[in-house]
Amino acid sequence: MSSRTVRYELIHQDQHSSARRGRLYTPHGVVELPTFMPVGTNASVKAMLPDEVLSTGAEVILGNTFHLMTRPGHELINNLGGLHSFVGWHRTILTDSGGFQVLSLKDRLTINEQGVRIQSPYDGQYYNLSPEISVQVQEALGADIAMAFDECPPHDSTKAYVEASMARTTRWLDRCIAERKYPERTSLFGIVQGGTFEDLREEHAQTLISRNLDGYAVGGVAIGESKPDMLRVAEFTARQLPTDRPRYLMGVGHPEDLVMAVASGIDMFDCVVPTRNARNGRLFTRHGHLVLKNACHKMEAGPIDSECGCPTCQNYSLAYLRHLWATNEILVHRLTTMHNLWFFGSLMRRIRSAIVEDRMNELVEEICAVWGSG
Amino acid sequence: MSSRTVRYELIHQDQHSSARRGRLYTPHGVVELPTFMPVGTNASVKAMLPDEVLSTGAEVILGNTFHLMTRPGHELINNLGGLHSFVGWHRTILTDSGGFQVLSLKDRLTINEQGVRIQSPYDGQYYNLSPEISVQVQEALGADIAMAFDECPPHDSTKAYVEASMARTTRWLDRCIAERKYPERTSLFGIVQGGTFEDLREEHAQTLISRNLDGYAVGGVAIGESKPDMLRVAEFTARQLPTDRPRYLMGVGHPEDLVMAVASGIDMFDCVVPTRNARNGRLFTRHGHLVLKNACHKMEAGPIDSECGCPTCQNYSLAYLRHLWATNEILVHRLTTMHNLWFFGSLMRRIRSAIVEDRMNELVEEICAVWGSG
Repeated sequence: MSSRTVRYELIHQDQHSSARRGRLYTPHGVVELPTFMPVGTNASVKAMLPDEVLSTGAEVILGNTFHLMTRPGHELINNLGGLHSFVGWHRTILTDSGGFQVLSLKDRLTINEQGVRIQSPYDGQYYNLSPEISVQVQEALGADIAMAFDECPPHDSTKAYVEASMARTTRWLDRCIAERKYPERTSLFGIVQGGTFEDLREEHAQTLISRNLDGYAVGGVAIGESKPDMLRVAEFTARQLPTDRPRYLMGVGHPEDLVMAVASGIDMFDCVVPTRNARNGRLFTRHGHLVLKNACHKMEAGPIDSECGCPTCQNYSLAYLRHLWATNEILVHRLTTMHNLWFFGSLMRRIRSAIVEDRMNELVEEICAVWGSG
Repeated sequence: MSSRTVRYELIHQDQHSSARRGRLYTPHGVVELPTFMPVGTNASVKAMLPDEVLSTGAEVILGNTFHLMTRPGHELINNLGGLHSFVGWHRTILTDSGGFQVLSLKDRLTINEQGVRIQSPYDGQYYNLSPEISVQVQEALGADIAMAFDECPPHDSTKAYVEASMARTTRWLDRCIAERKYPERTSLFGIVQGGTFEDLREEHAQTLISRNLDGYAVGGVAIGESKPDMLRVAEFTARQLPTDRPRYLMGVGHPEDLVMAVASGIDMFDCVVPTRNARNGRLFTRHGHLVLKNACHKMEAGPIDSECGCPTCQNYSLAYLRHLWATNEILVHRLTTMHNLWFFGSLMRRIRSAIVEDRMNELVEEICAVWGSG
């Protein structure tokens, strides 16, 4: 359906796995799938300028609804022309619904049928979040892709709780749909919940599909369940979803998770891992993690990874990076973040090639040999 | 003398002031004078990449001998090919002598004829600094311009103390000269001391000139004396110095100081003001300072300065910068530092034009009308 706000195109289906090479057309450009989306919580991919993020191969960045509605406020961003121009990122933006904060700030909130009341960890103020508010905020920000407002129950919830929560998430989804005012500008993705219970996942996927949404996400994963459980749920849920819509696995992940989830039919990922690890001095290399503070790097004249093409590896020795780390220089966060995002961008390029050449399973093996298979 | 390591060329002498438009040829390129040199204490101009620093118009950066000898160590930098390649800055580098730390860490040191013993504020370790060590370190770093090891007595010292200290600084200078092993690679500038006493300044200038050095600095200023005293000393000392060598006013300063000192015949400046103020949210504009955290900027759609050509002003609203400030995002330090260094680079371009057009005095008036005359 070419009248959709975002449109998925299948380019190639891997012959030996469920991996698919696709393309997503959004109001702000084309996204080659599978893609990894860096997180820009406070309207900034930490330490990076938009052009630098783009140079790593990323074509979508994430914004956080709850953070942005509290600081600086979505009306302010809307008055200044929307999140794209505020940030200076002129490609696709996806915003979360704020629902995930329901989980991460659970000591600071009350939840009921109407929605959620959260106390901000920054100013102690109380904020209401509901399906309606979430859609209003995401549309005010001008996101290309808005996420439906959902509850993400803790991974150790009972089946009864997950089932009841899922039903409420569906009622919230219908309120999100009813609230949309700018569907031609901001698409809406639904989020499949259901915990680790396959019957619930199947039921919820069918419910969402009946709403004919722009895309579907697998939610409620990577929140403390085991890695095999996470991958099983991702694979099972992906199988339930229509082939003509993008599939987004939320909050994942590590290199081995990405390749395995792609092989299960996932198209989109977001995670703070590359950026947060960078700021903690944990760097990704083709041989595995490298810990910057380790004394063994003190006199190392070579780069982080001699085969890496990122500007950091082209220009700087590990000795210099470790020195910046030891002296607490701001510059180190830029250089390490650039490297880690480049690693993820590069991995996604390899994934896209592997799919087109029907050798995704081999890439899964290769990556898992370095990073483990969970 | 074209065989000098660095060579000064006079291009134009302003007809109505002592301002001079010159050029400095160093082993790493040409420096248009007058110039402002950003400070890169720990082998990094804080938050910035070398290309960005260069884009602001800076052609020389400073490194700090004491900081670099303690972390990561000058031998390490030398083994990796020197400071230029360590930092990725392929233009001129000037290093201080470590002598200034004698003043700034005065509670942590002992000083005698041999040199100085300092306790590092980072690891509590003791380090010796002497004329010989200072030259060894600066040559190991591969600086284009090394500064002679001096004592910078506190601004409220007695004349007797200043005179005795000055005599020792001369003895230290002669030991620096004797220690030089790579004069074809690393030039040596002498530092005129003498406090605020003109007879001492004159005497010390003559002493230094007799050593026929590559350049001369005015030291012992901007350390707590009044601004009129600072400018008087700079002007008086500049008059004592030969016309065929560069003159460097150390640790200065603010826009009004720069223009007045240029009008007195100074060619080179360094100061942490643009970079440190940037990180404190104090921004330079053609109307004066702007304090980023002020609530009045919260919804401001315009840039820091609508006439500024820097990448920050080209791409970002004050509202965005203030939001990054409020959320403590690393990116704000990059964007504000870029702006402030651009402001200084732009001011130096205006100064160089004004000299060539014999209207330096008018520029002094114009800048002092905004920034005060001290």
